[in-house]
Amino acid sequence: MPRTETQEAMVNVVNLAEKFALFGDHWSPRVVGTVDDYEVKLVKAEGEFVWHKHEDEDELFLVVNGTLTIAFRDRTVAVGLGEMIIVPRGVEHRPSADAECEVLLLERKGVVNPGDAESDLTVRNLERI
Amino acid sequence: MPRTETQEAMVNVVNLAEKFALFGDHWSPRVVGTVDDYEVKLVKAEGEFVWHKHEDEDELFLVVNGTLTIAFRDRTVAVGLGEMIIVPRGVEHRPSADAECEVLLLERKGVVNPGDAESDLTVRNLERI
Repeated sequence: MPRTETQEAMVNVVNLAEKFALFGDHWSPRVVGTVDDYEVKLVKAEGEFVWHKHEDEDELFLVVNGTLTIAFRDRTVAVGLGEMIIVPRGVEHRPSADAECEVLLLERKGVVNPGDAESDLTVRNLERI
Repeated sequence: MPRTETQEAMVNVVNLAEKFALFGDHWSPRVVGTVDDYEVKLVKAEGEFVWHKHEDEDELFLVVNGTLTIAFRDRTVAVGLGEMIIVPRGVEHRPSADAECEVLLLERKGVVNPGDAESDLTVRNLERI
């Protein structure tokens, strides 16, 4: 599907640091861009998220600041600044961070965090910034 | 489609700087990860690429080092370290870089660079590193 001139005019450079400065809460992703049916989101992480999995979608985490810890059932990995990890569909994981860290996420539109583990941390209707 | 235990064991942290150190040529993307049907690629850019567009796919550029220039038919933008831009499908663009820069790309699997503009710069069967 071709896009219109109007959409062409909407091609903007997104500065990640400027976007991260717009919010302060943790585990509440904001959408900063769309690639086809995928959303690029920014999230600040601190403390522990819940164990969950996404049955049908892979999820990319790219750390922009700090260190994100991801626990799997068999091991735990640290993802530092300038590092990324792709958690395959169906794999249980629990993100956490001892100190606040900033993470870029990529996942298919409509994926709800925390996947199959509905909780107080579930966020729907993500804000676009 | 659920994945297997073997695939779970393949969940690795990818250090972007380490991956960029593995190659030196320009405009020749390497695949470093797959998110569903999308490929995460790393590319080093220097000099001018060709004008092209992707008719049916959006393309994300995230600059990890240096500055990437992207010309559109109506204007030119500079994308610096820690910045990203998503070029919508159907929009003609020409990436270039005065000095070498390092860029993370995300696009649907099978997308060939440079899109509709077959040239000496066309790279197929991308190496996975």
